[in-house]
Amino acid sequence: MRIDKRLHDRKFVRTFFTTPTAVEGEDDSAKMLEKAAQLTGMQAPDVWVPDNEDATAPNMRDEGAQNIIDVVSEYGEDYPGEIHPRIEWHRDSPETRHQCLKHMLNIADPDKGAIQHIDGFVIPEVGDLDDWKKADEFFTIVENEYGLEEGSLAMSVIIESGAAELGMGRLRDEMGKPSNNLQRLFMLVDGEVDYTKDMRAITPTGELPPWDELRHNTSRAASAAGLIAVDGPYDDIRDVEGYHERMIDNRAKGQLGIWSLTPGQVVEANKSPLPPVEGSWQIDAGGRVVDLVEEDGNHVYNGDRVSLEETDDGYLLTVGAEELTLDEDELKEELVNMAQYIPSLDDIVDSMEEFEAAKEAGKGAIAMERAATIVIDGIEVHISSDRMWDEATYQAMMAPIALFQDVYENRPDQHEDLAELYSEDVLERAMAVGN
Amino acid sequence: MRIDKRLHDRKFVRTFFTTPTAVEGEDDSAKMLEKAAQLTGMQAPDVWVPDNEDATAPNMRDEGAQNIIDVVSEYGEDYPGEIHPRIEWHRDSPETRHQCLKHMLNIADPDKGAIQHIDGFVIPEVGDLDDWKKADEFFTIVENEYGLEEGSLAMSVIIESGAAELGMGRLRDEMGKPSNNLQRLFMLVDGEVDYTKDMRAITPTGELPPWDELRHNTSRAASAAGLIAVDGPYDDIRDVEGYHERMIDNRAKGQLGIWSLTPGQVVEANKSPLPPVEGSWQIDAGGRVVDLVEEDGNHVYNGDRVSLEETDDGYLLTVGAEELTLDEDELKEELVNMAQYIPSLDDIVDSMEEFEAAKEAGKGAIAMERAATIVIDGIEVHISSDRMWDEATYQAMMAPIALFQDVYENRPDQHEDLAELYSEDVLERAMAVGN
Amino acid sequence: MRIDKRLHDRKFVRTFFTTPTAVEGEDDSAKMLEKAAQLTGMQAPDVWVPDNEDATAPNMRDEGAQNIIDVVSEYGEDYPGEIHPRIEWHRDSPETRHQCLKHMLNIADPDKGAIQHIDGFVIPEVGDLDDWKKADEFFTIVENEYGLEEGSLAMSVIIESGAAELGMGRLRDEMGKPSNNLQRLFMLVDGEVDYTKDMRAITPTGELPPWDELRHNTSRAASAAGLIAVDGPYDDIRDVEGYHERMIDNRAKGQLGIWSLTPGQVVEANKSPLPPVEGSWQIDAGGRVVDLVEEDGNHVYNGDRVSLEETDDGYLLTVGAEELTLDEDELKEELVNMAQYIPSLDDIVDSMEEFEAAKEAGKGAIAMERAATIVIDGIEVHISSDRMWDEATYQAMMAPIALFQDVYENRPDQHEDLAELYSEDVLERAMAVGN
Repeated sequence: MRIDKRLHDRKFVRTFFTTPTAVEGEDDSAKMLEKAAQLTGMQAPDVWVPDNEDATAPNMRDEGAQNIIDVVSEYGEDYPGEIHPRIEWHRDSPETRHQCLKHMLNIADPDKGAIQHIDGFVIPEVGDLDDWKKADEFFTIVENEYGLEEGSLAMSVIIESGAAELGMGRLRDEMGKPSNNLQRLFMLVDGEVDYTKDMRAITPTGELPPWDELRHNTSRAASAAGLIAVDGPYDDIRDVEGYHERMIDNRAKGQLGIWSLTPGQVVEANKSPLPPVEGSWQIDAGGRVVDLVEEDGNHVYNGDRVSLEETDDGYLLTVGAEELTLDEDELKEELVNMAQYIPSLDDIVDSMEEFEAAKEAGKGAIAMERAATIVIDGIEVHISSDRMWDEATYQAMMAPIALFQDVYENRPDQHEDLAELYSEDVLERAMAVGN
Repeated sequence: MRIDKRLHDRKFVRTFFTTPTAVEGEDDSAKMLEKAAQLTGMQAPDVWVPDNEDATAPNMRDEGAQNIIDVVSEYGEDYPGEIHPRIEWHRDSPETRHQCLKHMLNIADPDKGAIQHIDGFVIPEVGDLDDWKKADEFFTIVENEYGLEEGSLAMSVIIESGAAELGMGRLRDEMGKPSNNLQRLFMLVDGEVDYTKDMRAITPTGELPPWDELRHNTSRAASAAGLIAVDGPYDDIRDVEGYHERMIDNRAKGQLGIWSLTPGQVVEANKSPLPPVEGSWQIDAGGRVVDLVEEDGNHVYNGDRVSLEETDDGYLLTVGAEELTLDEDELKEELVNMAQYIPSLDDIVDSMEEFEAAKEAGKGAIAMERAATIVIDGIEVHISSDRMWDEATYQAMMAPIALFQDVYENRPDQHEDLAELYSEDVLERAMAVGN
Repeated sequence: MRIDKRLHDRKFVRTFFTTPTAVEGEDDSAKMLEKAAQLTGMQAPDVWVPDNEDATAPNMRDEGAQNIIDVVSEYGEDYPGEIHPRIEWHRDSPETRHQCLKHMLNIADPDKGAIQHIDGFVIPEVGDLDDWKKADEFFTIVENEYGLEEGSLAMSVIIESGAAELGMGRLRDEMGKPSNNLQRLFMLVDGEVDYTKDMRAITPTGELPPWDELRHNTSRAASAAGLIAVDGPYDDIRDVEGYHERMIDNRAKGQLGIWSLTPGQVVEANKSPLPPVEGSWQIDAGGRVVDLVEEDGNHVYNGDRVSLEETDDGYLLTVGAEELTLDEDELKEELVNMAQYIPSLDDIVDSMEEFEAAKEAGKGAIAMERAATIVIDGIEVHISSDRMWDEATYQAMMAPIALFQDVYENRPDQHEDLAELYSEDVLERAMAVGN
């Protein structure tokens, strides 16, 4: 069994949703947990994380552990996603680590009826790999204590220190060694708030730095060690557009999952990585991207930022404050650069089938053309561009399909939502392609 | 004693100021050194680096070593910052490394009266960690020769090769081993000019690439090994605005210190990381950031790049060449995205105290609101946004405060400058918070 | 012999040109190979890669191996660049790896007359360093089988997995160990398409992410281990401008070579890194860079995006939609920021000689001034800026010169093209400087 293959049930995790385990001052400190435990469909995350760490005040965490037991034993069996409580840990505090062991022993006791529905635990604030191994050892002790199979409880970690970021680069060498069970690792989750503290970074407004390198390194470690990369919380919870932009940026790094702080964020994050139902042409007009409207097979620009007129010797294209005098070829080239096509699920499947046919016919590489007639101010311009496809391109285009297939197989509670979006024919072809 | 805690006197270094040790053709080759040695207040750096390497011509370096002895023995006792001369070293040249040992033995001789005021030495042009260990060994030999405590001389390195960048990633594993004294490490300083050469990078204008990854990796290594990250020289010495932008970018990476080539740069770099005296709202209008002016509690935009008018069915917002037709909610959302608040030292302390109170009351996380009335072309728009604060947010906001506290404790010569900026009440609260 | 020095004949590789080895359905499946083998001058790459992997359909690869033998044995002796066939390999497939050995044994058989003209082989789809060592071992076996000197066949790898990216960071430690011959390593080539697949990255349009960190890490590994960094294919083959922008971006990372898919791309990529024949001033007007035209020693802006007029109390500078009211000093500062000079080969040599003279005169650092009179709408503005040059600056400016010298020495077939571009005097001074 190779440690760099994804060995857990889920090969993709879109959503990592945390819920405080105990809130003081309510009649029932577990109210939020109970509500979250009954979510389903697009509101239910791929991974639910009852959070007995930072989201819960330190003096409420014993009660929080009991709430996890009560709520998961009651609702866990029907929960559509996986359940991974987060428990306390800190690389710098033996007291906190000891607390981790005690809470894990409590929650994992089979007599209490929760562990049967728990897939693993999330360990925050890890340091270097020697620190990860200490946590792994507690999992092993707990498994042994309760007769669970060694390695059966998944361990996920929150990367919130430079030491942990460096540690990820060595996972491939350390997993599978006889003195640890690090093969239990499942998700690598960035925790940018604490990471910012650990790196001592400062921004003028107090907002978080983008941490591009951290996200790249997390994704790379997930790739090298067969794990799942998940981005941290997006704490401006009203900013839906910003959350989507962050997810697009994450996906371009291979980090396909993200933390969600509210059920609303869960819905957005469950849907965001699914390929669109309809393909669309867009024009990127100096930073603002505008969708073109399809009319009779043409694609019409209706904004007021770009304008086009014919002149005696060619064309005048205005983009914002900029005026460009162009001949026809230059106009086409300019539009090829400004326009882009966002393929639908259907389109992606089409392209993959086209390449499969070419490969059958003995061709290693083919040029795949993308063409359209774009209309600006009534003037039609036909544009086209080529892209070389070879086996590698084909494999790379498999990622959104594989994610889709993983969701479809593992989340029957979302079939209804998916059937509302995609036609039955597309669903079937998407499930069949590449296999 | 843990190697990943910052063990030296200074936990933060804002400024790393180099001075040539000997300039030919002057009556007194040490004139620049003497002048630099008498700087004080905001003109004096946190770390002063008499530079017996690249800033001094090779044939002047023996004289430079003598000048260091003369000037430091005379002025060192009263110098308000730390003193770390840079001496010769090269990973590819045993001759240069031997020169390093000879100059260090000369400068560190207690009979010459300088070493008593010298905190450490800066080693340039290091390669991989085995090369760092060779330099560390020379420190140990020098300490032994003169009866100084082993490890008492700090060693800082200039990262100017790919090998050194990679080496930083392993410091945590190597420091503390019995055969080295790498615990003496203090600052990791990027040297982007030589690094550019080593990486063989080429830009059309000859200006330096931004080297984002290098700066991230330096900051990360500093975090993982308890060291201080410092950025390299900004060689367009007249470009004050560019220097500030670089520092803002550095701080977002956790690299809180920067090299200074002139006393003018020292002043800018000493002040730049201190939180502002007054909070302010800004509008980012397509790249140009404009401060809003407070009038009767409102925040007024006075520029000509953004304009706003009411229309029959909503609002017309013009940003540069772009016109947006918006209803009231869309207008608010647009302005929330365009506006940002830069908190003052006072504001930061307020927020931290608010969270401390919530934590006392058993809440692990609270929503912190930021609201304002913004006025554009006489139209008042009330905007507000929320941010989730938990323990991690609180800890992350501690960085500018901790830096401030470190400066205040270690630089009494700057108290007068600070008292001119901040009120006594704010200074007191800032020194008390988080402790 | 130090493993971190570049030991192969070429210290720089501008172009890595792949050609399918066998295309089905043509009368002669080797037609593309034969055509490529006869390229010369700017159309011939520094490294030619008959591609018996992804560019060739799996069922054509035995025929492809034979085609390599036939074509290289016929044309190889006169080929002006190096020849490095790419053969099959996959970290996850022992069958593919065995195929690699068989094809290499076939192609390298001296009796077949090709190996005499082959400089090495390219191994795709490598994983961690243990996987690289398996490939290295096959090279050693082949060398031994045919009495070739151990290590004489260069090995280059395509980095297309997170594991390989991590592996690059340890090359310096592994090369030179007694049980491998990894000193044979020559090029580290990014393969972003397969890398995208391995990282599971997804973009809305299906285009490749920029992978900044990968390219940085490749360049860094090349620096630390004495290798050559080459970027992967640019698959929008009609987009010449985009290809050039990518190369400029690569060079700022130290990745001086790039893959070429067509002879047209080879020409662009061979010429792109050569310093320009004429220096030029440019104005960066909000993203669009415009060349200024030299007239009587002044530099005139002829675009319509920037305009300038004198007012009663200063100047009004318009850049796109933005109007700036400035006094003379502010105008100069604004223009210093907007303008930049792209030095010619001649200029670079001049500056280096100026610094050499200063160093002779005992100066370690000098301020190098760059000044010009810029004309906008008839108004002349004199601007100037300083840059500190020290030994490091001088060394960093050596990179484009060293590349130029390497090309001139190794590619006599391009002398004619170079003589058409540069004057004889400049060529001579460029070949002499820095030596």
